[in-house]
Amino acid sequence: MAIKISNFFNYQNNNSKIGDFQDLEHIDGVSISATTANLYNIKRDDVVMFYFRKGASYASVYTQSKVISENIKWNQKIKTKKIRAIIINTRNANAFTGVEGFKSLKVIAEKLADGLSIKQKSDEEQPVRIKPNELLFACTGTIGEPFPQQKIIDCIPSLLKNLKYTQNKYLWIKASMGILTTDTKPKMAMDECKIGNTVIKIYGIAKGSGMIYPNMATTLGFIFTDAKLSSSILKKILKKSISNSFNAITCDGDTSTNDMVTIFATGEAKNSEIKNINDQKLNEFQKKVDNVMLNLAKSVVADGEGATKFITISVLNCKNEEDAKKIAFSIANSPLVKTAINGEDPNWGRIMMAVGKTSAKLNLKKLKITFGSVKIIENGELYSKYNEQEASDYMKNEKIDIYVDLNMGNKNFTAYTMDLSKEYIAINSDYRS
Amino acid sequence: MAIKISNFFNYQNNNSKIGDFQDLEHIDGVSISATTANLYNIKRDDVVMFYFRKGASYASVYTQSKVISENIKWNQKIKTKKIRAIIINTRNANAFTGVEGFKSLKVIAEKLADGLSIKQKSDEEQPVRIKPNELLFACTGTIGEPFPQQKIIDCIPSLLKNLKYTQNKYLWIKASMGILTTDTKPKMAMDECKIGNTVIKIYGIAKGSGMIYPNMATTLGFIFTDAKLSSSILKKILKKSISNSFNAITCDGDTSTNDMVTIFATGEAKNSEIKNINDQKLNEFQKKVDNVMLNLAKSVVADGEGATKFITISVLNCKNEEDAKKIAFSIANSPLVKTAINGEDPNWGRIMMAVGKTSAKLNLKKLKITFGSVKIIENGELYSKYNEQEASDYMKNEKIDIYVDLNMGNKNFTAYTMDLSKEYIAINSDYRS
Repeated sequence: MAIKISNFFNYQNNNSKIGDFQDLEHIDGVSISATTANLYNIKRDDVVMFYFRKGASYASVYTQSKVISENIKWNQKIKTKKIRAIIINTRNANAFTGVEGFKSLKVIAEKLADGLSIKQKSDEEQPVRIKPNELLFACTGTIGEPFPQQKIIDCIPSLLKNLKYTQNKYLWIKASMGILTTDTKPKMAMDECKIGNTVIKIYGIAKGSGMIYPNMATTLGFIFTDAKLSSSILKKILKKSISNSFNAITCDGDTSTNDMVTIFATGEAKNSEIKNINDQKLNEFQKKVDNVMLNLAKSVVADGEGATKFITISVLNCKNEEDAKKIAFSIANSPLVKTAINGEDPNWGRIMMAVGKTSAKLNLKKLKITFGSVKIIENGELYSKYNEQEASDYMKNEKIDIYVDLNMGNKNFTAYTMDLSKEYIAINSDYRS
Repeated sequence: MAIKISNFFNYQNNNSKIGDFQDLEHIDGVSISATTANLYNIKRDDVVMFYFRKGASYASVYTQSKVISENIKWNQKIKTKKIRAIIINTRNANAFTGVEGFKSLKVIAEKLADGLSIKQKSDEEQPVRIKPNELLFACTGTIGEPFPQQKIIDCIPSLLKNLKYTQNKYLWIKASMGILTTDTKPKMAMDECKIGNTVIKIYGIAKGSGMIYPNMATTLGFIFTDAKLSSSILKKILKKSISNSFNAITCDGDTSTNDMVTIFATGEAKNSEIKNINDQKLNEFQKKVDNVMLNLAKSVVADGEGATKFITISVLNCKNEEDAKKIAFSIANSPLVKTAINGEDPNWGRIMMAVGKTSAKLNLKKLKITFGSVKIIENGELYSKYNEQEASDYMKNEKIDIYVDLNMGNKNFTAYTMDLSKEYIAINSDYRS
């Protein structure tokens, strides 16, 4: 189990409260259901559905791995402009399950589309027939085991029965818990803004903590908004947000077959139409989506397997963002850096090593390194008043901020990671023993 | 302490004995000295010198890090065709020591050149004056601490006094132990071959085991031969050898500021002159240098911090070597793969993940994965007769061979690594506590 890291959020730029997660409330157009398909040996929710009665615009980003799960293949084939639901299951990644794994999704989608269509008929004024290709799937869990098609089909009646048109914080917690695997706590974040004069809600949940029984990490993130925005605008917003949030975190440098982040917009807030991504009315919305995504991404890291420290690595004033990113991830993925931080050792030599080993251009004489406000390296040399005790004291904090300033340009990148502890090895090597 | 891994050498292609290291004997033209400069708090040899009475041709490869130690800078400035000695110290890496660190080397080189010149006068028929710029330095240890110039100068008389013109296996062990840091055993390898009708010796020693108190790994390798070969030919031989030996191993994916591998040729075997790298008389020599280098590299991995398993990853039949290398190192550096192997878990899903996350081109339908002789993946699907028990039994071995066959071309690459254990974290995070 990961050790609890509290109050790691940096909410300086908004008015949200500080805590492990934020409470989410009702958002128009989103319905939630969670149930158990008995995919685990213990009793817990393992299938969660988000249903959009009137449909939702949406945009997704998927794993960049060349080995992708069957559900990601399914999602990539969906061409509809409005999505009706997303179904998330844990315990089985539906990866390396071949043709059978894909067929299972088809069968489940057909059954569920039928069930939702019947629900439309009884609940809606203008019912529509819901089609299988209006449904998305997210899967996370073991790779290479046959997909539990029948168990999931068997839980569809309960999934439909549990569907709530109105949410409260407990329902969001239930849904957030239902998508977890080795995570130790639910991950939720929210923010609000205006588009024109209309108040807009942005809610998000996520999972992912380094690895999943018994195979690997999967990061899933789902953002819900009542904004009225087209899928093509959502796509651009998501693309902008992802690089500094979910693509800025690393637990162990490994990549899943199932990673997926999707944003859904129900349109129920009925804001004035936005036709262009450059419309200034979107600026605040983009910023708040960035906030929600970053807070979710941070909570994934904070709950990383075996984490005892939350590490923020800011690489500043590079010639280009690519160099800043390379250095930030070289530090964030270095086992030597991560074990030193675990041992509360202000081992700046290891940071230097990680800076030096990338292909990024460096002028050592301009280099500056700071741990929090403790100066370590200045003009490429050990700071003349460097005080090892002061640095050691700083390393006792739960939240460690490392600043690497190249002084060669004006591009920055910030990466987030956690330390590498014995607990990580225990979780990942002793699992079956 | 690393757990002992014995008999990991693959000597199928030569006649050497199997064991943790090989015994080295006398080699003409090489003299050895080891002494203590009291660089540690415990009594041990920490300064070692290899002296070439008549000079030696040589060639080096250095770390590719952009942050390099002062001794590497010194070595890169040396332009002489014959080198007279190399001095290796442990405990202090002379990295990030600035102008002072470089100046120290100059002072030490001057004193030592004087001492060696006096020795020449008394011992040699045709004495020469030895110059400071005929000396190389190798340093390994802590980064950022002032270089112990005076302590090393103070040990020069003892270093000169201890110099032996004739070696035996005990002297080689003493020298090999004198360059170690966190390593748990000396690393020596040897082979013999012929150039024309002349028998040639190739001896080598190495150090490096993942990381060094309290900063980072440094790999040092020194090859000695009595062959008569020019520095420019040695350079080409070393370059060929290094990519499949020292550049094919990884302990934790981190790179040192001080890495250095050098080959020295005394010429005392007096073989017929070789003018061209393509001379067929060199074929056997190249092969045997490859052997010695690979065995040294393997012994570095086998002694890797916390290692309990020796892992060989062969990526076969790729379109180009670059792709093969990317995949091999993606697997070898994955904490998820390394922890699974530590837990003796045949977790092929993690291998798939590591294969999938690189930028190498893949045709999943052609992919084949084998653990030893246990078939896992065939034609991109889980092998129809895959037997988890058989795979689990295989993982209990000390030596794990993973084959990834892309079936897309004819280029291969083999990487070597060890597992990731709790011991690694203990060594690297608890060091100061």
